[in-house]
Amino acid sequence: MYVSDGLTVNASGHLCVSGCDTVALAKEYGTPLYIFDEALIRANLRAFRAAIEEIYGGNGLVIYASKAFNCKELCRITMQEGAGLDVVSGGELYTALSVGFPVDKIVFHGNNKTYDELVMAVDNNVGRVIVDNITELETLDAIARSKGKTVGIMLRIKPGIDAHTHDFVRTGQIDSKFGFALETGEAMAAVKEALGMPNLKLRGLHCHIGSQIFAPDPFVLAAEVMLDFMHLVQMETGTVLQELNLGGGFSIKYLESDPLMPYNDFMRTVAHALKEKAQSLGFPMPFVLIEPGRSIVGAAGVTVYTVGSVKTIPGIRTFVSVDGGMGDNPRYALYQSAYELVCANKADQPRSTRITLAGKCCESGDLIQENAPLQPVVPGDYVAVLSTGAYTYSMASNYNRIPRLPVILANEGKARMIIKRETYEQLIENDL
Amino acid sequence: MYVSDGLTVNASGHLCVSGCDTVALAKEYGTPLYIFDEALIRANLRAFRAAIEEIYGGNGLVIYASKAFNCKELCRITMQEGAGLDVVSGGELYTALSVGFPVDKIVFHGNNKTYDELVMAVDNNVGRVIVDNITELETLDAIARSKGKTVGIMLRIKPGIDAHTHDFVRTGQIDSKFGFALETGEAMAAVKEALGMPNLKLRGLHCHIGSQIFAPDPFVLAAEVMLDFMHLVQMETGTVLQELNLGGGFSIKYLESDPLMPYNDFMRTVAHALKEKAQSLGFPMPFVLIEPGRSIVGAAGVTVYTVGSVKTIPGIRTFVSVDGGMGDNPRYALYQSAYELVCANKADQPRSTRITLAGKCCESGDLIQENAPLQPVVPGDYVAVLSTGAYTYSMASNYNRIPRLPVILANEGKARMIIKRETYEQLIENDL
Repeated sequence: MYVSDGLTVNASGHLCVSGCDTVALAKEYGTPLYIFDEALIRANLRAFRAAIEEIYGGNGLVIYASKAFNCKELCRITMQEGAGLDVVSGGELYTALSVGFPVDKIVFHGNNKTYDELVMAVDNNVGRVIVDNITELETLDAIARSKGKTVGIMLRIKPGIDAHTHDFVRTGQIDSKFGFALETGEAMAAVKEALGMPNLKLRGLHCHIGSQIFAPDPFVLAAEVMLDFMHLVQMETGTVLQELNLGGGFSIKYLESDPLMPYNDFMRTVAHALKEKAQSLGFPMPFVLIEPGRSIVGAAGVTVYTVGSVKTIPGIRTFVSVDGGMGDNPRYALYQSAYELVCANKADQPRSTRITLAGKCCESGDLIQENAPLQPVVPGDYVAVLSTGAYTYSMASNYNRIPRLPVILANEGKARMIIKRETYEQLIENDL
Repeated sequence: MYVSDGLTVNASGHLCVSGCDTVALAKEYGTPLYIFDEALIRANLRAFRAAIEEIYGGNGLVIYASKAFNCKELCRITMQEGAGLDVVSGGELYTALSVGFPVDKIVFHGNNKTYDELVMAVDNNVGRVIVDNITELETLDAIARSKGKTVGIMLRIKPGIDAHTHDFVRTGQIDSKFGFALETGEAMAAVKEALGMPNLKLRGLHCHIGSQIFAPDPFVLAAEVMLDFMHLVQMETGTVLQELNLGGGFSIKYLESDPLMPYNDFMRTVAHALKEKAQSLGFPMPFVLIEPGRSIVGAAGVTVYTVGSVKTIPGIRTFVSVDGGMGDNPRYALYQSAYELVCANKADQPRSTRITLAGKCCESGDLIQENAPLQPVVPGDYVAVLSTGAYTYSMASNYNRIPRLPVILANEGKARMIIKRETYEQLIENDL
């Protein structure tokens, strides 16, 4: 039931994540609390890896886009499952390095890496720096030269595909802060400049067309456009670029009414189009990288809150206030994101009321969901918000000086903490 | 020039905050960097205090709503200037207590204080707990009773005034998660219940009608509605409530085209209406509390970034990417908030271009401002975003695992750090 197969209801009517009773975990660790389904995260990583094996004959790599949820243990799990890691900052790279993540499988993204971050990437021999713009290309080249190193890079290209998702998570089109535009000649100029830099090894090209994409068509189109461009590069420079990074963007189920995306079918469709295109161009099939983030961890996470008060405004709505909010999950405030709610200690009962789930921040916009079905609840009940694995802990703030939550990993009945709850002492650690 | 009088341009063409060269500070402390004008913060606190003295004959108190920007040094400054402090969580209270803030001048807000937070308030003898709902009233009473203490409280009332501001910062109306509704009888029932609780001392009532309010009328209306209700309480119960807390909501200048609000005129208008109302009702003038937050610190803060790249998309727009973004200022992503931009090292030149200021997060929505005037800039230039003193540091996240910024206080040519920059080590401190 409820969005992911890892979510079940036990004999006490309690919501369980990978066999662990969320009510028991809430009592043990306190609320609010993130609980992640480790089995599901590992299964997702394995499924993508198996798809690469099956569909591309192993000629590719799945890269976990860790901005969705980066911490030491997620880096370890990614490493154990044989996937690569996409980092987007010195902080994410630092986390990966702290657990000994193999640097050749690290991909370093970002539209504006700082000088120090580029130095850090070069010093640590990061496998692929995804270069976003000319300034960065020249800065990275200078750093690599000064250190006598050769740095593997890919160029981020805007293929001009608009994946028609929410305005704030759309990226492939020309009006984007990311990458080199194809249609203006900027991309070709960058390729040629990169090919002339002996301290940079241009491994291939990258594109990312958006997030929460529900259909394969934009992926197919982007893949074709990119291969066409790689072929053009060969025509104009004689160089056959080896790698094509298709980015991420697979949608997940937030609501029960959302379709469950057949990722493998998507990948098969894209691979088929790529192979046809390669054949028609007489171009060799590239090594394909994909960068799922949300689709690895999104549906694997739930957030459990305690109800503090229930306020019914006759004829208008019922506010259920909980002990977290936009500090631990800003996505409703940012994007009006939809979520399913379940009373964790009454998960076997019908969700017969419709409520607004309000956070505890002193801000009217601090809502987690509006007009959502929920079991009737009273103060002291636990409310679980589902599919909160991606962009929650990673976007969490200390707004109102509320400490950030701990993260528990549940795995077939066993639970362990992977991030500790912040303390009040830590909140003022940097205050002078 | 530029939004606040504390901002000037020196002979080198550099933007200065209270006489401190922002370019020199950026070089000394690195970017991104928050710089606050201490002289302006103190002047603002003094102006509100003087207004209370002049307009209410000292029969009132200005309370700094620290959720706008809470840290140890801001608590000290508030204390030194004789103002009270509004805290909205255990974390903010902890910060205030850590510098010895006088507890009788602390006001504890929140629609859903946790049990532990209420215990903390009682244990530390917080002067006024602003009780939001019946569950909280009864919980607080039980805690006070169990500890044999008397706790000063005010009840948060929804006066039914809609201050017509941005949807997300509107609170006075009945469809709000905050407070007791007047029109349903909920407020009167709560007053009567509170008056029957010997361990709670009902000092008065609180209301807050919204944020960024540009006209005095809604404040006047709210004050009148509240005094009518206090009179009704007297009629029905015989009790004369002593205190009226009118909350905050004063607007500030974000854009140069925004009007500069004559706060004193506002307060005079409200005080005049209150006095007339009190006289007409034969009700004594209450002790008046006001809770400015944004208007104390908002215009006093600037954020200084370094330009990493400039990307012109012909016929569409120019992206200027800087080394911060929605992590240090999520207000554009949340509310499309307007800001003025100035190239800190070319502040004497005309702002002859229009650009989009993009952050460095791997997210299309990570923009700080769109279509804003700015001097022509190149990589390495510094861009200052003005009026970023409120709800920036306080809402900051580690999204993309980017460390949070340091805060520098500038005061008539002298600068000192009050919050240190976060380190990579701190980012993984709680990771297991």
